[in-house]
Amino acid sequence: MGRLVIRNVSVLVVPEVGECRIDEFQDLHVHDDRITAVAPTGADPEVGLEEDGGGLGEVEVIDGTGLLAVPGLVNSHTHSPMVMMRGAAEDVSIDDWFNQRIWPMEVNLTPERVRVGARLACAEMLLAGVTTFVDHYFHADQIAQAALESGIRADLAPTYFSSTGPEAIEAAIATTRELSTLDPRITASLGPHATYTVTDEDLRRTADVARAEGFRIHLHAAETEEQTRSSVDRLGVTPMEVLDRTGVLEAGALIAHGCGIRESDLPILERHADRIAVASCPKVYLKLAMGSVTPIRGLQSIGVPVGVGTDGAAVHNTLDVWESLRMVALTQKQREQDAEWMTVSDTLRLATRGGAKAAGLTDTIGALEPGRQADIALLDLSGPHCQPLHDPRAALVYSVRASDVVTVLVAGQVVVRDRQLTTLDLDDVLAEARDLAHTLVDLSKGGAVQHYAP
Amino acid sequence: MGRLVIRNVSVLVVPEVGECRIDEFQDLHVHDDRITAVAPTGADPEVGLEEDGGGLGEVEVIDGTGLLAVPGLVNSHTHSPMVMMRGAAEDVSIDDWFNQRIWPMEVNLTPERVRVGARLACAEMLLAGVTTFVDHYFHADQIAQAALESGIRADLAPTYFSSTGPEAIEAAIATTRELSTLDPRITASLGPHATYTVTDEDLRRTADVARAEGFRIHLHAAETEEQTRSSVDRLGVTPMEVLDRTGVLEAGALIAHGCGIRESDLPILERHADRIAVASCPKVYLKLAMGSVTPIRGLQSIGVPVGVGTDGAAVHNTLDVWESLRMVALTQKQREQDAEWMTVSDTLRLATRGGAKAAGLTDTIGALEPGRQADIALLDLSGPHCQPLHDPRAALVYSVRASDVVTVLVAGQVVVRDRQLTTLDLDDVLAEARDLAHTLVDLSKGGAVQHYAP
Repeated sequence: MGRLVIRNVSVLVVPEVGECRIDEFQDLHVHDDRITAVAPTGADPEVGLEEDGGGLGEVEVIDGTGLLAVPGLVNSHTHSPMVMMRGAAEDVSIDDWFNQRIWPMEVNLTPERVRVGARLACAEMLLAGVTTFVDHYFHADQIAQAALESGIRADLAPTYFSSTGPEAIEAAIATTRELSTLDPRITASLGPHATYTVTDEDLRRTADVARAEGFRIHLHAAETEEQTRSSVDRLGVTPMEVLDRTGVLEAGALIAHGCGIRESDLPILERHADRIAVASCPKVYLKLAMGSVTPIRGLQSIGVPVGVGTDGAAVHNTLDVWESLRMVALTQKQREQDAEWMTVSDTLRLATRGGAKAAGLTDTIGALEPGRQADIALLDLSGPHCQPLHDPRAALVYSVRASDVVTVLVAGQVVVRDRQLTTLDLDDVLAEARDLAHTLVDLSKGGAVQHYAP
Repeated sequence: MGRLVIRNVSVLVVPEVGECRIDEFQDLHVHDDRITAVAPTGADPEVGLEEDGGGLGEVEVIDGTGLLAVPGLVNSHTHSPMVMMRGAAEDVSIDDWFNQRIWPMEVNLTPERVRVGARLACAEMLLAGVTTFVDHYFHADQIAQAALESGIRADLAPTYFSSTGPEAIEAAIATTRELSTLDPRITASLGPHATYTVTDEDLRRTADVARAEGFRIHLHAAETEEQTRSSVDRLGVTPMEVLDRTGVLEAGALIAHGCGIRESDLPILERHADRIAVASCPKVYLKLAMGSVTPIRGLQSIGVPVGVGTDGAAVHNTLDVWESLRMVALTQKQREQDAEWMTVSDTLRLATRGGAKAAGLTDTIGALEPGRQADIALLDLSGPHCQPLHDPRAALVYSVRASDVVTVLVAGQVVVRDRQLTTLDLDDVLAEARDLAHTLVDLSKGGAVQHYAP
């Protein structure tokens, strides 16, 4: 891919701690897949190229004048192909959502339908400046192919239940192995569905494989306080204690939701804080009336990283991480009854550095710094909904729309240019999805992939 | 303006009760400022024109193929010129928001700055499909001029505090009188600020004028439960009881927020349900950690209409009613711990018919029906964030972005065409706002327009 410079752009700097800031009039230098330098416009244009001894040669220049460069957002927890069921399960309880709608619909999954859905999901995310997604779904090999076609970065966890038997579990584990060596943009995790759908025995087996082969585990746990109560009633332990006793925490895990994590769970989580993370998707918690949101303040107090996610579009309706991060800020202020908490800077940090940690890519993505992957979104904040622009950081959290994203790079590749995908034909992607949409929501076959009784 | 047909469009039908529906392949006929007919495409094109005896003559045709027509949204409570302070008061408590930021900033208000801000606000709203806003602010005559320039519909309440003395109050009332006869698109209300900033005596005077001259009263009351507690502690009565004993409810009122309305207030409100409404702006309640949201279920149970609003952009950051209505759905499900409550249809009804009632325009706007004003937004739901489109109604609540609005009519006038304002030069509007923005947030003068101590 060679060399690329984003010229004269404002840059969102997200430090590890403290306030974010905007550096204006910068050049962002990219060589192949990495950021090599961020320097004031007009400084030596060869800065960052010295180690290669190269002159400018063939350098692609993107004019960043008037635009703001931000680290590509990370969707820390989703089920990308569920875009195919967008809007097909509205105004239902969490029980009905699982048992009357989604799990019966998922009887209809085929490799082709998953791939078509994943392709649409990748298109939606890239156009919105989401450069990495952390996925958990069936037919993950198909999702990998869609991701590669689109150019997006992904961590993929092939989903399994204990109810489908040991062969299906081993097949899912084998898929994780295959995907992990496929491409630099694809990583893979182990994907047991949840503490309430996978037995302790199977979680132990998962943790053993994870430790032995260096995989992380991505699963749902303590999604609601009700699930935690039920776990304590049935098993005498909380879902976090299940993850602890089965070795999942020690192996390293991304925990989706965790709204039912209790104060008493925090010391357990603290012991593994260097290898676990939690993904928060609050639009879903409100929409399904789940009763609580992720206790981010408690998790951060013990050093557990938190990322921002959308969950699947069958409940979140979009894969828009701008929407998610706004909901994180709003619902966290509400939860803690503290308007000064979950500041603009902290929210932006969750969606970038927090997402990088959730994806297992802590030092690789999540910041616009030399040495990191060139995953970059350029935004135009000149629209009337962002102006006047007293504080671009506040605009990113509280005003911006996904449609303000103009240009997107993943690993140095321009995947969205002037609001158009360069890698996929959007009309084709949409037409394929529309053609197959009815097959996904067909309930005539009966049955379900699982029953929700946590 | 003559005749106009929106040809071959899908139409969102929002009934008074029950499920909304989408009628496909319709022609929407408009004559001057009104909808004259909604009929299947290909039916007699002269339908609805018969009463005028006219042939088609000069009929403007807008191709609605692939678009969805919805009633223009109503922003039921805002302070439009506060867009000038967008992003200038982040991560602060409600006390600091008022006393350290906004009320000190409002010392800087001038007629020109208000007009520039209102112009930007009108541009933002129209481009987002908001065709009516219900405003409460200073220099309302300037806001009226901005609204007229833009073509938007507005109900304007000139704001007053008791602290500024009887002359200022009489001047505000005089402005209400003047604005009420200005133009068919402008209505005016009386604008006492709140029960905690306006004395009972002044509220009584306001109610007397309202009853005598047929105005409605638009004010803040019971914004938080804390305000209600404080009112009971200081006065022995709730803010709703203050509105009752001063005659405000009997005169007819739009109550902004009402998060602190108690169960015990409902019988009082029920007696005036035919002449009051409440506006709910939940993004603000979360962002300022106000502790509760509007008790819409209780209000609806006694027949009090509820509209959806943004409040001012100094706290809401946008004037995007799509965002507000989504937050209403989400926070109401959360509040009632009932995912089946505040359905897609009920949410859409709040933002259209509910907004019409909040604006005092119950039979005039809020639905696409013959005889109503032609306030119409055409949306393109073909974007990847809305597809596949299992349910366009769900997309309107949970997927759509303001940028999906393509064309907007107010009173039959095309004010936005192909995402461009026809009435204002957006670049000029933005440039003016940027030029003046720093003057609004300047705190060097000291002082404040009021002190928040409810």
